[in-house]
Amino acid sequence: MPTEAEQHLRSWIDRESQAEAMIPLIGRLYRDNNVVTGIYGRRLVNRSAIDILKAHRFARQVDETELPVSQTLPLVRALTTLDLGASSIDIARLHARYRTSAHASTGDLDSFLREELAEVIGRAGVGLAAPRDIVLYGFGRIGRLLARIIVGTASSASGLRLRAIVVRQGGADDLAKRASLLRRDSVHGPFEGSIRVDQENQAIIANGTFIKVIYASDPAAVDYTAHGISDAVVVDNTGRWRDEEGLSQHLRAKGVSRVLLTAPGKGELKNIVFGVNHEQIGAEDQIISAASCTTNAITPVAKLMDDAYGIDHGHVETVHSYTNDQNLIDNFHSGERRGRSAALNMVLTETGAAKAVAKALPRLSGRLSGNAIRVPTPDVSMAILNLELDRETTKDELNRFLRRESLEGSLHKQVDYIDSAEVVSTDFVGTRAAGIVDGLATIVNGRQAILYVWYDNEFGYSAQVVRVLEHMTNSAPVKYPKVEPGHLASSNGAALPAT
Amino acid sequence: MPTEAEQHLRSWIDRESQAEAMIPLIGRLYRDNNVVTGIYGRRLVNRSAIDILKAHRFARQVDETELPVSQTLPLVRALTTLDLGASSIDIARLHARYRTSAHASTGDLDSFLREELAEVIGRAGVGLAAPRDIVLYGFGRIGRLLARIIVGTASSASGLRLRAIVVRQGGADDLAKRASLLRRDSVHGPFEGSIRVDQENQAIIANGTFIKVIYASDPAAVDYTAHGISDAVVVDNTGRWRDEEGLSQHLRAKGVSRVLLTAPGKGELKNIVFGVNHEQIGAEDQIISAASCTTNAITPVAKLMDDAYGIDHGHVETVHSYTNDQNLIDNFHSGERRGRSAALNMVLTETGAAKAVAKALPRLSGRLSGNAIRVPTPDVSMAILNLELDRETTKDELNRFLRRESLEGSLHKQVDYIDSAEVVSTDFVGTRAAGIVDGLATIVNGRQAILYVWYDNEFGYSAQVVRVLEHMTNSAPVKYPKVEPGHLASSNGAALPAT
Amino acid sequence: MPTEAEQHLRSWIDRESQAEAMIPLIGRLYRDNNVVTGIYGRRLVNRSAIDILKAHRFARQVDETELPVSQTLPLVRALTTLDLGASSIDIARLHARYRTSAHASTGDLDSFLREELAEVIGRAGVGLAAPRDIVLYGFGRIGRLLARIIVGTASSASGLRLRAIVVRQGGADDLAKRASLLRRDSVHGPFEGSIRVDQENQAIIANGTFIKVIYASDPAAVDYTAHGISDAVVVDNTGRWRDEEGLSQHLRAKGVSRVLLTAPGKGELKNIVFGVNHEQIGAEDQIISAASCTTNAITPVAKLMDDAYGIDHGHVETVHSYTNDQNLIDNFHSGERRGRSAALNMVLTETGAAKAVAKALPRLSGRLSGNAIRVPTPDVSMAILNLELDRETTKDELNRFLRRESLEGSLHKQVDYIDSAEVVSTDFVGTRAAGIVDGLATIVNGRQAILYVWYDNEFGYSAQVVRVLEHMTNSAPVKYPKVEPGHLASSNGAALPAT
Amino acid sequence: MPTEAEQHLRSWIDRESQAEAMIPLIGRLYRDNNVVTGIYGRRLVNRSAIDILKAHRFARQVDETELPVSQTLPLVRALTTLDLGASSIDIARLHARYRTSAHASTGDLDSFLREELAEVIGRAGVGLAAPRDIVLYGFGRIGRLLARIIVGTASSASGLRLRAIVVRQGGADDLAKRASLLRRDSVHGPFEGSIRVDQENQAIIANGTFIKVIYASDPAAVDYTAHGISDAVVVDNTGRWRDEEGLSQHLRAKGVSRVLLTAPGKGELKNIVFGVNHEQIGAEDQIISAASCTTNAITPVAKLMDDAYGIDHGHVETVHSYTNDQNLIDNFHSGERRGRSAALNMVLTETGAAKAVAKALPRLSGRLSGNAIRVPTPDVSMAILNLELDRETTKDELNRFLRRESLEGSLHKQVDYIDSAEVVSTDFVGTRAAGIVDGLATIVNGRQAILYVWYDNEFGYSAQVVRVLEHMTNSAPVKYPKVEPGHLASSNGAALPAT
Repeated sequence: MPTEAEQHLRSWIDRESQAEAMIPLIGRLYRDNNVVTGIYGRRLVNRSAIDILKAHRFARQVDETELPVSQTLPLVRALTTLDLGASSIDIARLHARYRTSAHASTGDLDSFLREELAEVIGRAGVGLAAPRDIVLYGFGRIGRLLARIIVGTASSASGLRLRAIVVRQGGADDLAKRASLLRRDSVHGPFEGSIRVDQENQAIIANGTFIKVIYASDPAAVDYTAHGISDAVVVDNTGRWRDEEGLSQHLRAKGVSRVLLTAPGKGELKNIVFGVNHEQIGAEDQIISAASCTTNAITPVAKLMDDAYGIDHGHVETVHSYTNDQNLIDNFHSGERRGRSAALNMVLTETGAAKAVAKALPRLSGRLSGNAIRVPTPDVSMAILNLELDRETTKDELNRFLRRESLEGSLHKQVDYIDSAEVVSTDFVGTRAAGIVDGLATIVNGRQAILYVWYDNEFGYSAQVVRVLEHMTNSAPVKYPKVEPGHLASSNGAALPAT
Repeated sequence: MPTEAEQHLRSWIDRESQAEAMIPLIGRLYRDNNVVTGIYGRRLVNRSAIDILKAHRFARQVDETELPVSQTLPLVRALTTLDLGASSIDIARLHARYRTSAHASTGDLDSFLREELAEVIGRAGVGLAAPRDIVLYGFGRIGRLLARIIVGTASSASGLRLRAIVVRQGGADDLAKRASLLRRDSVHGPFEGSIRVDQENQAIIANGTFIKVIYASDPAAVDYTAHGISDAVVVDNTGRWRDEEGLSQHLRAKGVSRVLLTAPGKGELKNIVFGVNHEQIGAEDQIISAASCTTNAITPVAKLMDDAYGIDHGHVETVHSYTNDQNLIDNFHSGERRGRSAALNMVLTETGAAKAVAKALPRLSGRLSGNAIRVPTPDVSMAILNLELDRETTKDELNRFLRRESLEGSLHKQVDYIDSAEVVSTDFVGTRAAGIVDGLATIVNGRQAILYVWYDNEFGYSAQVVRVLEHMTNSAPVKYPKVEPGHLASSNGAALPAT
Repeated sequence: MPTEAEQHLRSWIDRESQAEAMIPLIGRLYRDNNVVTGIYGRRLVNRSAIDILKAHRFARQVDETELPVSQTLPLVRALTTLDLGASSIDIARLHARYRTSAHASTGDLDSFLREELAEVIGRAGVGLAAPRDIVLYGFGRIGRLLARIIVGTASSASGLRLRAIVVRQGGADDLAKRASLLRRDSVHGPFEGSIRVDQENQAIIANGTFIKVIYASDPAAVDYTAHGISDAVVVDNTGRWRDEEGLSQHLRAKGVSRVLLTAPGKGELKNIVFGVNHEQIGAEDQIISAASCTTNAITPVAKLMDDAYGIDHGHVETVHSYTNDQNLIDNFHSGERRGRSAALNMVLTETGAAKAVAKALPRLSGRLSGNAIRVPTPDVSMAILNLELDRETTKDELNRFLRRESLEGSLHKQVDYIDSAEVVSTDFVGTRAAGIVDGLATIVNGRQAILYVWYDNEFGYSAQVVRVLEHMTNSAPVKYPKVEPGHLASSNGAALPAT
Repeated sequence: MPTEAEQHLRSWIDRESQAEAMIPLIGRLYRDNNVVTGIYGRRLVNRSAIDILKAHRFARQVDETELPVSQTLPLVRALTTLDLGASSIDIARLHARYRTSAHASTGDLDSFLREELAEVIGRAGVGLAAPRDIVLYGFGRIGRLLARIIVGTASSASGLRLRAIVVRQGGADDLAKRASLLRRDSVHGPFEGSIRVDQENQAIIANGTFIKVIYASDPAAVDYTAHGISDAVVVDNTGRWRDEEGLSQHLRAKGVSRVLLTAPGKGELKNIVFGVNHEQIGAEDQIISAASCTTNAITPVAKLMDDAYGIDHGHVETVHSYTNDQNLIDNFHSGERRGRSAALNMVLTETGAAKAVAKALPRLSGRLSGNAIRVPTPDVSMAILNLELDRETTKDELNRFLRRESLEGSLHKQVDYIDSAEVVSTDFVGTRAAGIVDGLATIVNGRQAILYVWYDNEFGYSAQVVRVLEHMTNSAPVKYPKVEPGHLASSNGAALPAT
């Protein structure tokens, strides 16, 4: 073997071994201390060694150099010794601060961490909110993805506990069928973990999460307390009720305190796009909507653009995957064109998604029109934002701005950015961002900017819904390091006037 | 232009002009005399000049020479002068008989026809059964194709009259939507003709056929007589009821005398495969099933094989297009595997179609097993008959036998045969045979024979249903020439290999 | 049967019988006199009785009343008595002029026609250009559709004669395979007519058109004169050469006088969009491009909009069916993203189609940007024109304008208009317009207008190519009536909003 | 939270923590000792904590109880202390032997292991074969999956080293495109790990494996030694040469010692189906074929059936996903029917896969016929084996037999078994078995048995190819425990007469 090839492989094996060593440490911090670790927004909890190395490699997007696992491993090891309280710690940012701190020169990592994390040191288990009961009312495509995501967070002592799903009974083998649909998915692949059916207790046990299956057709008639559930947030995935009156039926059930609708809400309901207006959720808001997948994809990008450039007006065209609301082959459907075969056709559909942006971003009220065309793909969609801005820009400037925001901006979990000449829709299956800007496709002509935003209309939206849930239940932990590293704002600064 | 190319074109133009001249004559015979004209099973009524030439060309399959339109045009013209009564006249067979008759030598076509058609000459309009009222209960994919076929036969004074469809009301614009689904189809293309909505009378007018749209959810509660409908045959396309008890609800409605189910019937219901056991329909049978599309595809071929070779046992594997009974993307479904995305998967499904063959062909009882796999095509399926025969054969012998049966056998409208190295499933969209044998794919090893049978599971089946309807209402006219040409009759015999 | 249903049916039968009677007359006018008859752009030649009735019904779009076939039949019959010379006669417009003429009151149809058509009366066969030899170089999807369209016009004594196709030999059964691909198509259905293989002469005979199959890989080396072909127009469908230098190889072959490229041309080549700039083709232009399908779909609509409203700037987003240029499943491809599975993905692709509009419409130079997204449908695409106009308009006004232009404007063969709440992409398979505006989808906000334009990217484009061919060969006949009906002519004016 | 739900979750968290602790141990054994650990055939190397728990749960299929990670963790920990030499250790089987051993009563795990593994204790690094250079000639769908699998095994000091891929250069950005195709796949998802392009060295670095990209069109002209490659096995994925003569070109290149063709070989080439006849590969066999995907799916099941029941004769019908050998939309193709649109059609194709079974299983020579139908899915196929056996059986007996063989038989890596009422084709994407029997679909009538065998025609086949490669290079390690546990053979023994 030539030296070069050997060196590459040995280096990889070393790093792999260090990443493996990190796994039990990350797990312990999560389970014992409620500490979520990550690297520039990429979670490390429950990840494989290879995923951990990919996250280290991703850090070069921000720092212009790969983050060495040989330096983060000691840091993570040190964290496990501090009896930390609940928190969310960005290893990359913490490492960056350490490198530029005075302690680095003396190699005194311990002192650095004791200063930096003073507030949570020695506070394991202190002041932890009890986990919050979650009920999924309706178990269709969004319901099942929410279950997958929420179950994946159950090892933390705090947070969301998926306690029950509520469906109409579909036959003698209903329970097995619901479990099977959670276990296997034609688009998102197999469930990561094990799904068991507990026929006796009428429950599904998913990676240790015991999920009661409740059969009901009247939301108000369910007694959740009979199943040990209380103060629950009911997530309504049925779309059957969209306004306060209909959804308040859930509040009349015993054991429910709040309702989250996973569809655009009507009337006075707050439509929340996490990252944009989730701060508006007040203690008094018992019923909230998480808006639509398309509104979630558009709004964060629109906010970035409006804040930085000003949107005079614009139009959003969505090329959308088909959904189960359409027919397989032509047949009656109450909606226009939706009765025609979804598998064979482009289908024009009106959408309120663009107008709904204004519910989260009132400044854009009346400024965006929108339309959609459904096409024969099962998941992942594209929103094309055609915007007239208040000032001129260029493709390069705009892309630099969006890329930087996707890495370090306040909406970095909502807006991702990609720069690849070969990506297509299926590559985005399973992505958790609300939208991913395809930088190579960006078009700018003076004040007119056209942005191409991919989104997993199923999974990305579900991730946004879970963020709203975590916010509603105060289960989102404090983030460290608290201050965003200063060196980033300036790094490409000159070119980014409006940031 | 070289002589050869010129000659081809001039010859075509001549024939085109003659075919055009034939059109009004064929139309007049149909409308004024209730005479259906055809060429070896290819109908000439309502066809374009090019279709008429194609039918003439098809005749070479039987006669080993193209039928000259220059000879059939005078024949058809002569027919229009005879004041004929209702009948079905095969122009090719009539012409063949004339050529070999004594009259041919003297060119006395008129005398020939007067002898041959003596029974119906001068009997225009005599003894015509009144047209029979048909109601389509359910207007899904099969319902709409039945409507297309039945409307296409309305110009004849006798026969089927589509009087009403019965559906559940689907909203304010229900009528426009039903009309639109009849007008445009993603698989079968546009309706041939014009569809108008008569909002005032709550009706659809399709090529002059006035079709009342009745909204109902209880079959027994409909009063058809209020719409001038009486003694009707109700065709149930809903699949909601499959046994005598359920279907007899239709008989309790005012104006209904018989019921035809377009799905496999349960219990004692007769399952009719037209061509195989339609003679079993008795005057006392008020409720009848037309079996399933797959049973219709298999049974005629199985009958031919069993009659000629004896089927010891066998298995039928069906590769079937998806149907609206499946889901577009994974979701709950009471049937096994049918909940999984039809557009993305091969889906194994049990089917009773092979067993149901025995209902029409009792000799095969217990001899055929079957299974099906649904695949992502919207229409046209393939039944693979894997048969252990009672005696050995060869691929050539078997194919010759099936080809000949498809041209001249008693099941020639049910069993078609094709010999093309390039055909694929979409080529069979819109075919009216119950099944089409793909001869090139046939496999024979001694007594084991494997036959590949294409079928348009929507349109071919609908054509079979209409044949049952015509039989039930005695609207199928007498056929001329009465005797099958002698040289063909013998071909069914032991001598087949020599043909 | 109730009176109403009976009346509808009898009326239909009457009209059907009259339409049938018209067929031989229309055919005779076409073949003997080179007279093409039509109704507001809908050709009547080679149509079925039902098609003829549909064309009469279509007339109500212009005249607000269905055109009675009882009145057009005598008119067509009268035309057959006038020994007419080559011309294109719009029966509906001629009838409209007759109704308002002085002759109508006296019922003197003959005198009216003699005045109206004086120039061509008694001139059958006079001054007819000889038919022009056409060669299809390349026989892919566009090549085969061109063959279908050109063969369908061969009965006329003048016009285009498809004489040969040139391909690389693909094996021993090449000829049979080429014929089979012409005979059956998974998207466009079977060929209307009969296809025969003439193995001896290495030719395909399609409805009487004798098409030599020439095997070659060097365009310049073919000697067309050896096959009796001379002064031919070679239509290059290979896309292998896009500039003058490459395409001029065809001119070096014996028997070729002109070349038409069915792809966007490079360099100084004229890019012709029929209807917009075909008048620019000069006698000196030996090589011409027919631009791309998308440019053909966009440009006529853009011209209408620019002429009536002024286009300040805009963007065209195309949602496009996949083409054989893409891969079935992921594999290497020299183009960006085009290697990724076309059947499974939305695929962003750059397109020059919007910029190419300026080649036909120089006023729009620099004003339109464009991009495309390929989706998993096999045919029919949608161009979304997002335009900033020079003046404000409303959805109603704009739709009225476009609808009227589609019926009576100079681009009525290029721009069609549809107003249906249920149409989807497959409904447009086989349409001959360059683009069809979906009026219900139109969005207007002040000066911003968004238009949704469907187009059959295969068939509609091929129809445009044939129009260019007819223009290049002077085979397009004189149209009658010569003057557009007065009430329509005014509708293009300033007064439009009031229409 | 109710006691029950809490208990489930706590138990899960405990097990998760133990599985995490096992990861660095498993990694160390692999990297430092070349010890591959697994559980009943499920590899543990490079797996996440959840995968490890799933493997433990899978053990209940064999042992009727879940394998407790609390017991395997100490066992794995003990293994890391023994300085083991290269071996493959089944943790579940080792644990089962320990439980029933004398040492278990005294808890003396260490003594047990020292006895059981005596041969390899203290032999770390001893007698290790050097890793073997592998070259992928052709980098299409199979080539890229082979790369993914081989790269995933690189951390072991022994084994396969992917050193180069050979392709024709496809343009300036060829390298980036090849890397991108390895990184993202529309069917199999993203590469697990990181792919880097080393432009300077013209190489792709995948998880530390340095892969030279060599451009060539003549196999014999490549000098692999110039890239430090020697004694290489060239895997030919192009399908361009299928016989000894063609493939021997690779042997004329410098640095190559053997050739493996990933397609059915012609002439005298040995067609190897791993598990069935790989023992036939002799030192003298320089060129070998790994047969086709379908032959690999059929042959192991056929061998099991023939050994246990005797196959008199049979037919294999394959419902196959489309492949890049077909066309996206209709166009010329030298193969019959393959030119027709793969995305829209069922396409009958002849296949030699059933006949090729006899090359690996000569006893079946002349006994199996076969045919295939391609359908619009991108991956995963189904082989339907319709067999006439030598003796009668029942569905239950047959399924029990196949299930047991899939768990413990000598072909357990080739033949898997599933018993789910909801599985469909996409569920099998990424499976490594050559075929998976769908037990619920099995049909048995006396001596006739019909088996439904799923297979990932891309990935499952690639896994079989890698098994052949490992066998050819002697890189498959010794397995422990050496003796299959006796308690399994008897466990359901009474019911399995023929085993």
